Formats: sequence, structure tokens, C-alpha cells
Amino acid sequence: MHTATESDIVRLARATKALALTLAATPTFEKNAALEKIAQALENNQALILEANARDIAQGQAEGLSKALIDRLSLNARRIHDLVETVQQIVRLPDPVGTLLDAYKRPNGLHIEKVRVPLGLVAIIYEARPNVTVDAAALALKSGNCVLLRGSRSALNTNRALVEIMQAALVQTALDPGIIALVTDSDRAAVSELLQLRGIIDVVIPRGGSELIQRVVNESRIPVLETGEGNCHVYVDGSANLDHAVKICYNAKVQRPSVCNAAETFLFQKPIAAEMVRQLFPLLRQAGVDIRADESIRALDASVTAATEQDFDTEFLDLIVAVKVVADVNAACAHIRRFGTQHTEAIVAEDPSVIDQFKKGIDCAAVMINASTRFTDGGEFGFGAEMGISTQKLHARGPLGLPELCTYQYVVTGQGHIRS
Amino acid sequence: MHTATESDIVRLARATKALALTLAATPTFEKNAALEKIAQALENNQALILEANARDIAQGQAEGLSKALIDRLSLNARRIHDLVETVQQIVRLPDPVGTLLDAYKRPNGLHIEKVRVPLGLVAIIYEARPNVTVDAAALALKSGNCVLLRGSRSALNTNRALVEIMQAALVQTALDPGIIALVTDSDRAAVSELLQLRGIIDVVIPRGGSELIQRVVNESRIPVLETGEGNCHVYVDGSANLDHAVKICYNAKVQRPSVCNAAETFLFQKPIAAEMVRQLFPLLRQAGVDIRADESIRALDASVTAATEQDFDTEFLDLIVAVKVVADVNAACAHIRRFGTQHTEAIVAEDPSVIDQFKKGIDCAAVMINASTRFTDGGEFGFGAEMGISTQKLHARGPLGLPELCTYQYVVTGQGHIRS
Repeated sequence: MHTATESDIVRLARATKALALTLAATPTFEKNAALEKIAQALENNQALILEANARDIAQGQAEGLSKALIDRLSLNARRIHDLVETVQQIVRLPDPVGTLLDAYKRPNGLHIEKVRVPLGLVAIIYEARPNVTVDAAALALKSGNCVLLRGSRSALNTNRALVEIMQAALVQTALDPGIIALVTDSDRAAVSELLQLRGIIDVVIPRGGSELIQRVVNESRIPVLETGEGNCHVYVDGSANLDHAVKICYNAKVQRPSVCNAAETFLFQKPIAAEMVRQLFPLLRQAGVDIRADESIRALDASVTAATEQDFDTEFLDLIVAVKVVADVNAACAHIRRFGTQHTEAIVAEDPSVIDQFKKGIDCAAVMINASTRFTDGGEFGFGAEMGISTQKLHARGPLGLPELCTYQYVVTGQGHIRS
Repeated sequence: MHTATESDIVRLARATKALALTLAATPTFEKNAALEKIAQALENNQALILEANARDIAQGQAEGLSKALIDRLSLNARRIHDLVETVQQIVRLPDPVGTLLDAYKRPNGLHIEKVRVPLGLVAIIYEARPNVTVDAAALALKSGNCVLLRGSRSALNTNRALVEIMQAALVQTALDPGIIALVTDSDRAAVSELLQLRGIIDVVIPRGGSELIQRVVNESRIPVLETGEGNCHVYVDGSANLDHAVKICYNAKVQRPSVCNAAETFLFQKPIAAEMVRQLFPLLRQAGVDIRADESIRALDASVTAATEQDFDTEFLDLIVAVKVVADVNAACAHIRRFGTQHTEAIVAEDPSVIDQFKKGIDCAAVMINASTRFTDGGEFGFGAEMGISTQKLHARGPLGLPELCTYQYVVTGQGHIRS
């Protein structure tokens, strides 16, 4: 089905996919040896990576990229070292491929096995941060998947250097270097074309801001694994341990505000609101948090800005928090159902019936009971590295570890069995 | 987020979705009692169903629908009885909701549970056969999902009668009758509108011909569970038990040619081809099978029609088979990779290394080893009823039983845990 007129992207995708079955059958020790070579090569080629990265940064600065974007784009010795560590950590994770998920005999003697197998060819479409190039390639390799990487134009030199180094490392192994492929066409139309390749690309994973994710969801004919926004809430019930509540709210907002599992809104049940304001707000102010609250909170602390409806609907990803007083757990759930993004929702409460109502009243990937929203994370869940956090329900929810980058296959064995 | 201008479909979807969390938390015995009531009501209201069905048939005949379509559309006492039996069978299946898929404690003391939960609101878009209306509603109910049904215009009266009977049955139960909803707008645009409702509808499952499926895949912003075509192959290796090979080929083609797990192409390894032609072809001819074969086969049996490339690329769903001689298992795999639809592929062979090469050389939902392709089926796999057979890799592959209509949720419990 190769045609003379197919574009570079179609050709690249097809060539990469052609390696999928061989990679799927590659034993763990060969995949691990390849990952070790990649880690070593990244370590040994720091200068090359930094030189390519400097070109991206210079170009970004010339084009007036924001300081935050330049920071996301920038690599340094420490960040490269972290990349190498991630690859080495992935070596140590168990191989998900080949796991027997189920095995049974039917009354007619037919033997049925359900075996975990790789997805095939996974496309990752992502924004500035070049560490995704290495993380995604290493996770894909370990889970037996070929990968098609499409980073942002602003990181093209860095991504190209990283992929060339990884491919060169694979030349010395049993694996084909073509299993990691970079789409270098920085045209926006290239993504649109890629998203039509159903049947060649098995799954597409967008990683980035909501605009990127929306675009992929809207245009893709390929099944999408959405790693989405987190408008996460902490509900503090009247039955809460107040120390826990203060600690958890503070941690969920302040510890790393720029990530999807940070909290954006606190909901306080009426009886505990005054005490939360008294104990938590000074700490938040010290940390530089901009507090935006409803009238009930402002009646307790007049210095707080009034929250708009928009504030409750925003993933700030910054040192800003919206706060609201609610009548009870049901009102908290109603608020979360309206504004939540099905990522992570936390409750601080001691009353088990309230906790149960909370669990039943909301729909999200992870419910945190007396724990910070920040725990929804592949590392914290014990998965090791992760490909992102899914906010959709199909296939996988929450952190995407190695098993979530796989599908399964039925292998049915008979002795001349036919249906009657 | 309700707006004054939203259409009937958006309103219906939103109203149905609003019942999802309550249904998700409904205990098994109440769901089973509701299914029993539905079975009873269908049994008791046969006359009403047949009357509505007669109107659809009359209209279909007036509009010149083909005999095959009229047959698919037609209900009778026996078919209604089968519907009732399916619902009763679903009562007996284990409830997938609430199953603990994993539970563990992290070194920091955080307790993590992975619990199976319903998808939420599932939309089913399907063609003529009105039994899907009942099957899909019953499977959705048992798996704790609300369902939005959109059948074809030609079955609208029948579908409306079936849904009204099921809803009336639910009035006498603990469940809200609104959990089963029918889209009665027979406009094509209604489907397009429905496919935009990401965030309200959690998953859409198209059931029908490839045109319908392609349309859903192309237009949907909602995650799709594709239940697709089956261009299934049987490869007969030189090492095969010849009796098994003849029986399996015959069964895979003839037993029920109109379904997706019937075989469409036989691939014979050279040394065994002449014997297969001698033993199998007379049986196929007796059964009225139109045999279309390559030149090597025609050299053995000149009375056979010449196969075109198109024949190998067609899901006949009829008493037609394409036959080809291949050099070995690798050539068979190459043919299957080119023309297969990742549904079911069978090998008849005794040599274990050949079987292993076959498994590694193809990519499909189910591999049948010395068994008919016809076994890829929810009933045959022991799932009970099924929602279709998935040919995609995301979420679920092969027969979609009750667990495949669910997702999962993490419930993480701490004692004031924060991230450092």
C-alpha cells in the first residue's frame, strides 16, 4: 500500500510501524541493554545537547518567547543528568510485555490466554520541554512500542540532537534505531496529517496545554490518550483534623503550583471555615499566594480579593487559589461536578460516612482521602516514570505507567475445535 | 452550564448523564431486580412490540428496503423470546462494578486502591437490528452505565416501543427510568451533534457496517470503542493435521458467513495445498461457497474462479472465499499484515516453532491455534453477552463484555499525607 505520492510523514510513520512486531517480540534484556546504551550516550554527549539547546534558546529569545517558556526549553548539566537518571530508572522497572493477564480452559477444552502486548506505534505530540523527548522514547522502548515524536518548533534543534544521540546508541544494540522517530517538519499542517494516520499509528498522546490537547482531540482519527488539565479541589469537612487540613491545603497549592495535580480551589464546610482562614491564610500569604474567595470567606477576612465564577473554572497553575464556603459534602460534590476536570479531588474528613458520600458524589481519576492532591503521580503510585496523567476514562485513568502503554491479545488454543 | 439554546439531544444527554453517579453506586441486587422487571415487561408486551415492528416493516417495504434489511429489522415471537433470554442471562453474570483491581501500601504509608467503576454515559449508534436496543441497554445497566441509544430511522417505531417498555419497567424499581434514553431525532445531523458531546458522553460505540463506523471515527470528539470489520484468515501450515485443517476451514467459512469472525481467506502452505483442495473444495461447493483462488490453486483445480487483489481485501460476509498458496508461515503473516483487520487470525499447524512465528508475525485481537475463527465471541470466551468485538487497541480488544464497559478509579487514603 506504499504509494509514490505519500508525504514524508506518512512514509516515516509507515517505516516506524514496520518495526513494531519485531520490537514487540524483543526480550527484556535486549531492551534494557538498549536503554543502558541510551543513558550512557546522553551522558557522554552533554556538550552536543547543550550546544543544540543554546541554538534553540537564542532563537527563542530572538523571537521573544516568554521567560517561562525559555526556562521550560532550557537544558543544563543537572537537567541532562535527571534525564539519564530517568532512563536508568526505566531499566529497573518490570517489563509489562508478555504478562499473562488471564488464562483459563473453557468447558469445550479450548484454552484461552489473555496476554499483555505493546500498543504498536505511539505518537507523542508535545510542547517545549525537551525532557519529554527522552522520557517518552525510553518509556515507549521499555513497553515494546515504536514511537513517533513531535515536539514544538522552538525545541527542534534540541530534540533532533537528543533523538540522533539515542538512535546512534541503538546502532550498537540488537534494536533497530528506527524505533525512535522524530517528526522534524515544524509545519502545523504536519500534525494534522499525522492525526489522520489511523491504522498506522495506534495511539496518539498529546502532552501540553489545553489548546494542544483540544486540537488533537478535535482533529484526530487515531484513538487519543488525553493527558489533560487538572482543576483539582480540596474539600475540608467539618469533621476534619484541622492540622491535616491546613497541611494538605498548603501542600496541594504551594509545593509545586505549576503542575496538573496542584489544587486550584479549596472548599470549606461552614463550621470549619473561620478556623481554616485563621490558620491557613497567613501561611498562604507568606508563600505569596493570591487568595480569591467568596463572600462568606471575605466576611471572615476582608483583605481577600473577591472570586469570580471564572476563578472557580480556572486551572491557575500558579500561586493563586480560589476559596469557597459550602454547606456540606453534597454541596462540595456539586461544585466539583460542575468545575472539576476529573483529575484528582481531595477530601479532608474524619467522618467515614462523609468520606463515602464524597467518593460517590464525584467522578475523577483519583480520590485523595486525607492526602494531598499532589500524590497523583506515577512515581508516588510506585509506577516509576510516567507518560502523563490521563483524565479520560477509556483505556487508562490517572498516571500512565508502562502497563498503560500496552494492550492485550487473546491467544486461543484448540485441537481442531470448531463451533457447532 | 445549561444554556437556554441547547438542543433536545444535548438536553437529553445531559439529563441522562446526571443519573450516572447514582446508577454507579446502585447495588447489584437492585440492578438485577430491574433487569428481571425488564425481561418480564418485554415478555408481557410482545403484542405491542410486534405491532410497532409491523409499522417499521411496512414503511421499510414501502421505501424499498432490501429483503436482507427487512429480515434484520423483523422481530417475531422467537426473536423476542431470545431478547428476554439475553436479559435473563445478563442477570446471572457477575457485577463488574466495585471489583478491587489492585490494593497496596506505599512505603510512606499511603494506601492505594484501584477500583473498577462504570464508564458513566455510553452512547451506542447502531443499524437496523432492534435486538441491539435491548442487549445494549441491559449490558449498560448491569455494568452501571447510563446509555444513550441511537438506532436507525427504519427501526424507530420498534426501538421506541422497546425503550418505552424498558423505561416503564424501571418505574417499578429503585432505578431511574431515565438511565435508558433513546434519541428519536432521525436526522443524520443528530448523530453529528451527539458526537461532539465530549465531557457529557464518556464513550461512543458504533455497531454496524464500515460506513457507519468510519463516520463515527471521523466525526467523534468523544472516545470511540470501534467494533469493526473482520477480514479473518485461516493459514494452513504444511505441518497441519489435515482433518483439523479441513474441519476448521469449513467451519470458519460456512457455519455463519454473515458475521465478523467468519473467515474470508484461506492461505495454504505449498506442500499441503493439493490435499486441501482435494478434501475441502468439494465440501465448500456442496455448501454453495463461491471459491476465488490464485493461479497456484487454479493449477490444481481449473474450475475455480481467479481471485483479484480486491477479493483478498474484502470482508465478504457471505458464502465466498478467497484462497491463496503461500511459501511459508512468514509469507502468510505478510499477507495477513497487509489485508487483515486486526480481528481474528487462525493457524492450523502442529509445529510449535511455526505457531510461534505466526503469533509473532501478526497483530490482531485474537489468534486461534488449531481452532476456528468463529470462537472470537463473548459467549464462547465465557463472558456471556457482549457489546461487540473491538478491533482497536485502546481500552479493550476482542469481545466487549461487562468489565470492558467499565473504567477504574484510584482511591488513595492517607493520614494527613503531604508531598515533600
